[in-house]
Amino acid sequence: MKRDKLESCQFIIFGGTGDLTHRKLIPAFYNLLDQGLLPEEFSIVATGRSIDNREEYLASLYQSLHKFVKKEIKEDIWNALQKKIYYKSFDILNEGGYQNLKKILDEKSQSKARRIFYLAMPPRFFGTIVSSLEKYKLLDFSKPSWPKVVIEKPFGYDLKSATELNQQITGVFPEENIYRIDHYLGKEMLQSMMMIRFANLVFEAVWDNKYIDNIQIISNEKVGVGQRGGYYEKSGALRDMVQNHMLQILALTAMEAPADMSTESIRAEKIKVLKSLADLDIEQIDSYVIRGQYDVGKIDGEEVTAYWNERNVADDSSTETFVALKLFVDNLRWSGVPFYIKTGKRLPNKVTKVIIEFKSSFHPSYHKEFNDLSPNLLVIKIQPEEGISFEFNAKKPGTKAKIVPVKMDFCQNCQVGFNSPEAYERLIHSVIIGDQTLFTHWDEVEYSWRFVDQIAQAWSESKSQLPSYPAGSNGPKEVEELLKRDNRKWWE
Amino acid sequence: MKRDKLESCQFIIFGGTGDLTHRKLIPAFYNLLDQGLLPEEFSIVATGRSIDNREEYLASLYQSLHKFVKKEIKEDIWNALQKKIYYKSFDILNEGGYQNLKKILDEKSQSKARRIFYLAMPPRFFGTIVSSLEKYKLLDFSKPSWPKVVIEKPFGYDLKSATELNQQITGVFPEENIYRIDHYLGKEMLQSMMMIRFANLVFEAVWDNKYIDNIQIISNEKVGVGQRGGYYEKSGALRDMVQNHMLQILALTAMEAPADMSTESIRAEKIKVLKSLADLDIEQIDSYVIRGQYDVGKIDGEEVTAYWNERNVADDSSTETFVALKLFVDNLRWSGVPFYIKTGKRLPNKVTKVIIEFKSSFHPSYHKEFNDLSPNLLVIKIQPEEGISFEFNAKKPGTKAKIVPVKMDFCQNCQVGFNSPEAYERLIHSVIIGDQTLFTHWDEVEYSWRFVDQIAQAWSESKSQLPSYPAGSNGPKEVEELLKRDNRKWWE
Repeated sequence: MKRDKLESCQFIIFGGTGDLTHRKLIPAFYNLLDQGLLPEEFSIVATGRSIDNREEYLASLYQSLHKFVKKEIKEDIWNALQKKIYYKSFDILNEGGYQNLKKILDEKSQSKARRIFYLAMPPRFFGTIVSSLEKYKLLDFSKPSWPKVVIEKPFGYDLKSATELNQQITGVFPEENIYRIDHYLGKEMLQSMMMIRFANLVFEAVWDNKYIDNIQIISNEKVGVGQRGGYYEKSGALRDMVQNHMLQILALTAMEAPADMSTESIRAEKIKVLKSLADLDIEQIDSYVIRGQYDVGKIDGEEVTAYWNERNVADDSSTETFVALKLFVDNLRWSGVPFYIKTGKRLPNKVTKVIIEFKSSFHPSYHKEFNDLSPNLLVIKIQPEEGISFEFNAKKPGTKAKIVPVKMDFCQNCQVGFNSPEAYERLIHSVIIGDQTLFTHWDEVEYSWRFVDQIAQAWSESKSQLPSYPAGSNGPKEVEELLKRDNRKWWE
Repeated sequence: MKRDKLESCQFIIFGGTGDLTHRKLIPAFYNLLDQGLLPEEFSIVATGRSIDNREEYLASLYQSLHKFVKKEIKEDIWNALQKKIYYKSFDILNEGGYQNLKKILDEKSQSKARRIFYLAMPPRFFGTIVSSLEKYKLLDFSKPSWPKVVIEKPFGYDLKSATELNQQITGVFPEENIYRIDHYLGKEMLQSMMMIRFANLVFEAVWDNKYIDNIQIISNEKVGVGQRGGYYEKSGALRDMVQNHMLQILALTAMEAPADMSTESIRAEKIKVLKSLADLDIEQIDSYVIRGQYDVGKIDGEEVTAYWNERNVADDSSTETFVALKLFVDNLRWSGVPFYIKTGKRLPNKVTKVIIEFKSSFHPSYHKEFNDLSPNLLVIKIQPEEGISFEFNAKKPGTKAKIVPVKMDFCQNCQVGFNSPEAYERLIHSVIIGDQTLFTHWDEVEYSWRFVDQIAQAWSESKSQLPSYPAGSNGPKEVEELLKRDNRKWWE
């Protein structure tokens, strides 16, 4: 689909001493190098404040590598990698630093036209950084699509702030140079989603409201907010999960077949889905959206604290750690098919999956004779298990005629020792080769916020409930009601 | 669907000392008794020539039970069973014997109106037996659907002989009292076939020529003719397998949804399929039908003899031990979809399955970018493995975009210690409760013969090839050609 060319380039990481760089970026570079998926000529210039010099920085990366790469570290690969890594102690608010940085970048690489600026920092700094990059002439636009800027989520807090942020960035970088990260798009099964749909006649044949009763998109986390209370207080599950990951999964599930597999065509179809999200009836918001906040409870037998008691969280916090909602995609294919979305922290199991529930249209004789025949279920398992399963009805073995639901299963990562590549490997590789497919276009961000803002606003205005739920439970009891009202249930 | 009533009854087995009784019938009675699926009051009167008295007969059954029941024999069950078994040395051609038999039957049971006559004998005796049963007043038709007669295959040698045989039987028994055995219909997955099709929206949604490219029905045997050379010489694979089992599988695969699940409705739909089999172009028979005969070769590393060298087989035998053919079901649903049937002896593996190959309609971009995308395959595994699998395309895990075929699998009998009930248990149980669904109606027999006779006649008239194939090979090489000509291949 894409020019699969590994041109020499230079990575500049803002936030080089931060969590993301240690956990995800450097391990990804290591694995890409190991697989020969980095250009022969490249360099990484990391900037940060908490470390003074390169030796110390490399030592800290080496430690993290052992912690976060899921296999034994090959010393020769690490040696090759560390030679490419430079470190610059840097304060992004200190403008003099940019000139210094420019000197280093020019020194460390001949390919100054091919720079990738990776903003692994809180979004409030994005504007300052990009305008300074321009001001101090670190950007060379002589080659098409270069230089590139990679932006971590969250992309704004609502449509207004996202639009402002976007104006700052697009004031400097054209859209085709901008890579907005939604790391869920790097996950194996989400990439497989389009292939599953469009490289298989059978699935696509039944992928509409004639056959599908409803679709459930579920992403449960077991963890609490941990050290991220400060960020999460302002975000909550709605902005942290629904606006990006959940709506992106929905877009991939619901989209029409693109004209071709180019980034433009695929994005166009995803945007159409997000544009087609039916407005919610704000007066009836409680019958469409359930939120909740975790209270004390038990996870794996151990007592855990309530959300309001976490670090950097207000005692009277009204931030939701759980959200479940029902929405409709208002087009011909999906007319009448509800999409149920559910995500939360401190739930019993970590799992992300899409469940396609087909209609219960069976032979009338079977309906009459066997009560409660199960509908067909297609489950696309995104994490931790990656794969797909299909539940259908078959004869129960035995002399008498009975029908039971059985399951065909395909698990991609169940073999011992199998590790799917981490999302970030794929995303970094995509940035290098210039494939924007796995990154969100501004229009996607915009329409997602348009939808999500309705809910956020309704919550802020109304006296909508914020029930608490015990950590380790399935969320507030209202979440069952959401489907029961429609004579449906969550398939978990 | 059926009156599930276990009325007291009496089984009379003609051929009580034969192979079928030992291998299948008595083990089935044992298992049915063990599961409480026999009437409280019943008796089995076995007749035969090779054994003189009851003690000897019971001893021989006891031996067989240990050999053919796949689990430890419970002595209490066997004791209960053997008390119900009587034995009468009997020559079916000696008319005096019938009066004797009548006396015994009357003695051994009060339920003389509910007799089940099981003809486990070569068909040349069927006429004599049924007319003698009538002549000597062993039949009491005072209760509807009673007495019953169970007839083993082969039901005739061609349409003419089958019609004659049927006239002999229907001259005495009405159709609703006649149970023509096709033991494949008793197999779990063939019974499951209708449920798979009509209790699952997804399968039925794609079950036609819009989505299906072709259907392959395969039944491979590893064994040779063994001791059955005398029978097989006159039958061959066409009559032994295709006319009955293979066409029955085809009928269940291709039938329309019946109005309800009554025997009448189901049979009506199966008959429609068999009636719709398109006539073969006899002039072009070699391009529709391939036959073959096994030669010397190796099975599991051991030398085995050629067919013509088997016991009771002519040195210059022109009997086929292998047949593959292409046919069409000439109706709206299946217009243009070839059904490929293949069956033979001395093939590398014992397996019976139906493979639904879907059309290779994928997104044009995938067609362009990835050569040779695999079609979707739904495989219904009948024996030895029972289950269903679906092969589809998904992303190959890794950083690059590649599509690979993967498989979802459901195996019903793969758990250790799981044994599906034997076909004969279900068939005998069906006879007792009066459910004819798993037995072939005369019309099914008739239309099957009509179709098969075309081939047999073409073979007998033309100089059609009878290639040999080495035992242990995949059959004559012409069988690959049959599909290659259509740009298809066998999915094995």
